[in-house]
Amino acid sequence: MSTGELDVVGVGNAIVDVVARTGDEFLARHGLIKGSMRLIDEGEAQALYKAMPTAQETSGGSAANTMAGVASLGGQPAYIGRVRRDQLGEIFCHDLRTVGVQLAVSAAASGPATARCLILVTPDAQRTLNTYLGACVDLGPEDIDEALVRRGKITFLEGYLWDRPRAKEAFLHAARLAASAGRQVALSLSDSFCVDRHRESFLELVRHHVDILFANEDEIKSLYQTDSFEQAAQHARAQTGLAVLTRGARGSVLISGNDEVEIAAEPLARLVDTTGAGDLYAAGVLFGMTHGYSLAESGRRGAIAAAEVISHYGARPETQLAALTQRALHPAVDPRVADPRVP
Amino acid sequence: MSTGELDVVGVGNAIVDVVARTGDEFLARHGLIKGSMRLIDEGEAQALYKAMPTAQETSGGSAANTMAGVASLGGQPAYIGRVRRDQLGEIFCHDLRTVGVQLAVSAAASGPATARCLILVTPDAQRTLNTYLGACVDLGPEDIDEALVRRGKITFLEGYLWDRPRAKEAFLHAARLAASAGRQVALSLSDSFCVDRHRESFLELVRHHVDILFANEDEIKSLYQTDSFEQAAQHARAQTGLAVLTRGARGSVLISGNDEVEIAAEPLARLVDTTGAGDLYAAGVLFGMTHGYSLAESGRRGAIAAAEVISHYGARPETQLAALTQRALHPAVDPRVADPRVP
Repeated sequence: MSTGELDVVGVGNAIVDVVARTGDEFLARHGLIKGSMRLIDEGEAQALYKAMPTAQETSGGSAANTMAGVASLGGQPAYIGRVRRDQLGEIFCHDLRTVGVQLAVSAAASGPATARCLILVTPDAQRTLNTYLGACVDLGPEDIDEALVRRGKITFLEGYLWDRPRAKEAFLHAARLAASAGRQVALSLSDSFCVDRHRESFLELVRHHVDILFANEDEIKSLYQTDSFEQAAQHARAQTGLAVLTRGARGSVLISGNDEVEIAAEPLARLVDTTGAGDLYAAGVLFGMTHGYSLAESGRRGAIAAAEVISHYGARPETQLAALTQRALHPAVDPRVADPRVP
Repeated sequence: MSTGELDVVGVGNAIVDVVARTGDEFLARHGLIKGSMRLIDEGEAQALYKAMPTAQETSGGSAANTMAGVASLGGQPAYIGRVRRDQLGEIFCHDLRTVGVQLAVSAAASGPATARCLILVTPDAQRTLNTYLGACVDLGPEDIDEALVRRGKITFLEGYLWDRPRAKEAFLHAARLAASAGRQVALSLSDSFCVDRHRESFLELVRHHVDILFANEDEIKSLYQTDSFEQAAQHARAQTGLAVLTRGARGSVLISGNDEVEIAAEPLARLVDTTGAGDLYAAGVLFGMTHGYSLAESGRRGAIAAAEVISHYGARPETQLAALTQRALHPAVDPRVADPRVP
C-alpha cells in the first residue's frame, strides 16, 4: 500500500446496487416516489426484491462512486466504509480496488449483510432508490482510518451517513481529524429527503465543518427552506468556502466568495440512467480542485464525468475519464492527418 | 405452483456470471483461450477475480439462460439445478423466478459457494468463460424433481454437466425418466472442449437418449472428429431425431430425417457480447417445437432470440421476446395509419 499524499478520502455507505428496469406502474403499485432514496429494513428489502424484475448487480454507494470517478480521472482516492464478510462485500471491495481506489473497508464477520440498494430505473431514465443499509449501520468512529484521513487533501463525506447516529459520530470524527491536519472537508447533501430529516444538524455541520458543499437544486433549496435557487445559493455562498450546486440539464454553478462560475451540462448522445450523475459530477470537481485547476476547469470535468455515467446503466464510469476529458478539453489533431507516414 | 404441463424442463449448472470487459492482452497474460470455457478451482477463481477489472453480476448458466428465453417467448419452462444458500444463490433463483421459470433448485446449507463464471468480453464481442462450479459439483440424481421432468414436453440437458460424475448420473436419470413418460430429451453440446473431454460418452448419449441435439459448428465437428461441417451434419442426421446446428453469422441448419432447413442469421444493429447466443437460439427452437411450429418457424425464432441477446451485455434477454418475434414475424400495419381517427 502506498503511503504518499492522497487526493480525496471518501467516507460513505458501502453498497451493492441491484438494478432493474420497471415501468411507472411498478413504482405506483409499491408506493414509491420516483427519483427519491428511501431507507428500508431487511423485511422490506426482501419483499421488494421478490417483486422486482431480473436485476444486475454492480457496486455502488454515493461516495464510493465518486472515488471510482476520481480514480478514473487519474487521481489518488481512498475509501472508508463497512461491509459484512460475504459475497456482496467481496464484490464491493473488488470493484473499488480494481479501479485504483485505496481501501480501508471494515469487513464484519457477523451481523447484518453487506448493504444493497434496490434501484428501479424507469423508461424516463429516472432512478428510484431503496436502500437496505445492512452492515453500514454499524459504521462508527473506530472504522475511520486516521492515518488515511490525514493523508487526503480533501475528506469527502456523503450526507446519507447522517441517517445513523454512530455513522454521524464517525463522520464528525473524520471531519475533525481532517481539519486538525490542515486538510479540507467536503460534504455531499445526497438527497432532499435526507436533508429534510436532518436540516438543523446539516446547517450546523455546513457552518462549522464543511469547506466544500455539494448539493443539487432540490437539496440546497430544502437546506435553506426556500423555493428560490438564487436565494439558496446566496446562503450557501455565505456559509461555506465553496458551494457546488448542480441543476441537472440546466448545468451547474460553483460559488466561492465573490467568484461564481456557471457550467453548462455536456451534450448527450443518449440519456439512459441518471444513477450516479451527482456522484460523478463531484468526482470531476474534486479531481480538479486537487490538481490545481480553476473553478471553471473543475466544473467542466464534473460535467463531462456526469455525462458519461448517465449515458449507460450503472453508477460507475465505463470509459477511462482521464482520456475522455483529455479528448473533450484538448481536442488533438488526428495523428493520421498530422503524420503523413500513417496511411 | 402450477401443476399443468410444462414446455421445457432445463437441467443445468446454476451459475452467476461475473462479466468484465478486457483487452486481448489480459487473456494473453493469463493464458486464456479466447472463446473457450474452462473449469477452474476456487483458488484460480479467486486469483483471476482479483486480477479482473470491475465487473457486473448477472444470473447465467447455459440451460438457465435457455429457460429464461423460453419464458420470454411466452412458454412454460422449469429449471432444475443446485446452489448454495448464499447471496449469489439468492440472486440466481430470483432472476429465474421473476421471468416466470418454475424452480426446483436445491439450496445447500453448507459446502462450496454458488457457482460463478468469470466472463471476459473482448472488444470483438467474444467471450472467454472461466467457471468455478462450486455448489454445482454436488448435483446428483436426488436433485432431479421427478414429477417436474414428467410434466415437461422436453427435458433439456446442458452438456457442461457431463464434466461431473454425479451430475452425469443426474442427467441420465432425468433422460430415462423423460423417456419413460413418453417425453423428448434434448441435449446441448455446450463447448467443443467439453465434447473433446467426453467424446465417447457423448456419442453413446446421442445415439441412445437424445431426440434433439443442439450444437454449434465446432462442437458437431469435434463430436464426429471431422473437419467437414457437411459430414458432421450427416452423422447427426443419422443418429438423432432432430439436429439443430448453429454457425454464428452464417446462420443455422435444422435437420430431421429427410427434412433440412437453413435459417439465415438475423441482421444486427450492433454486436456487443456473444454470451448466450447459443442458449437463446436453443430457446427459440424449443419454444417453436413445443408450440406446433415447423422447423423453419422454430429456427427463425431461435435466430431472433439469439440476435437480441448478442446486441447487449449479458446472457439473458432484455426485451420481451414474445413481442419481438411477433413484430419480426408478423409486422402489423401501424394503427395510426390504419385508423384514420388517430392523428
